[in-house]
Amino acid sequence: VLASKGIERKTLLRPSQVVQEVLGVASSRVVVLSGPSFAREVCLRYPTAVVAASTSLEAAQRVQQWFTTEYFRVYTSQDVVGTELGGALKNVIAIAAGVADGLGFGQNTRAALIARGLVEISRLGERLGAQAITFWGLAGVGDLVLTCTGDLSRNRQVGLRLGRGERLEEILSGMQMVAEGVNTVYSAVALAEKYQVEMPITEAVYRVLVEGIQPRVAVLELMGRRLKEEFGGL
Amino acid sequence: VLASKGIERKTLLRPSQVVQEVLGVASSRVVVLSGPSFAREVCLRYPTAVVAASTSLEAAQRVQQWFTTEYFRVYTSQDVVGTELGGALKNVIAIAAGVADGLGFGQNTRAALIARGLVEISRLGERLGAQAITFWGLAGVGDLVLTCTGDLSRNRQVGLRLGRGERLEEILSGMQMVAEGVNTVYSAVALAEKYQVEMPITEAVYRVLVEGIQPRVAVLELMGRRLKEEFGGL
Repeated sequence: VLASKGIERKTLLRPSQVVQEVLGVASSRVVVLSGPSFAREVCLRYPTAVVAASTSLEAAQRVQQWFTTEYFRVYTSQDVVGTELGGALKNVIAIAAGVADGLGFGQNTRAALIARGLVEISRLGERLGAQAITFWGLAGVGDLVLTCTGDLSRNRQVGLRLGRGERLEEILSGMQMVAEGVNTVYSAVALAEKYQVEMPITEAVYRVLVEGIQPRVAVLELMGRRLKEEFGGL
Repeated sequence: VLASKGIERKTLLRPSQVVQEVLGVASSRVVVLSGPSFAREVCLRYPTAVVAASTSLEAAQRVQQWFTTEYFRVYTSQDVVGTELGGALKNVIAIAAGVADGLGFGQNTRAALIARGLVEISRLGERLGAQAITFWGLAGVGDLVLTCTGDLSRNRQVGLRLGRGERLEEILSGMQMVAEGVNTVYSAVALAEKYQVEMPITEAVYRVLVEGIQPRVAVLELMGRRLKEEFGGL
């Protein structure tokens, strides 16, 4: 059984948990496949690398064998929680990166949002039982970079248009596919509050999307926070 | 005293070590400033975040206070080794990312090179006394992403042109500024050998730049390596 990305808004369950519940199977029967992989590029046979994660290494290795080709490389992992959270939480950061680009800021700003976004994602992940190292791999950094810089990313597109001054309702009404980050931001903020984790970028996205503050104000608030050690909060 | 990026090819010394030696000052007097910061964008006052690292937290905090403005945010760190190595080693990965783009591969490939490149850089860094976490911050991931995706990056440009089939001599003869990765790859491979660290992407760049193998062959070799756990080698 393979599961997709996200965190269910009402129950805060991850997809693999939903799959286990609905199908009534053990976690060792569920494998999560995640990583930087725009479907269109996989179809074009561009070299792609992903992670197959399962509580059962044997199950992950089976998926690794099944899915590996000369252009699709699969690594195994036993950190299902981290692999799923990386895929879900990165969508919120991608909205922030899109907003910065839409406001006309440069690549320094985007790179800073990616690096600091990664810190806060991994901070929450660890509290939820993930291994920090997973966020520094394909399902973390890899997927985050793809989604924050790739124009095929719907979450980035939502941010871009917000940054250019469009309203959220307007943007969403014209989209055929779901920009998952717009839903995930509710779950992420709820989890951050519950586990008392500081997530300034995620909270800024929430304030823009849900509370309707101006994107430029949100960026200035982020830059004006108290000066600190880079990993002081970890 | 502030030092710049690189690893000296003959002595394998980092810039801060060279500065200490030449000026005869203690390490506590040297602060390294690094992170995703194209100079052109800093001049344009785009929001930028960097790290000031010193063995003396007090010295780093002084630089933090001096350099911080409303568009330039400085975090402190006491990991000088990691901060310098992140800035140097990322240039080699940027050449690899450029090569992949020059060959016409997509964003999946580039994201995979960034994520896996980060793993091998941090692996070497830890052996050299850096803290792994520094590589997941602004001077690591942040600078790596900027250099691998930003068209202002000279290292990326060298890779792009190699991927399109130009010869290295031809490319370098036309460049006004130094693409540091072309020199750093010698130091990186020497250090990887000395400390017995597996660095497949760095070694592939070395084979293309120094041994002259075809970029496409190097990519296929990378994809065809033995299947493994994502962090099995750490």
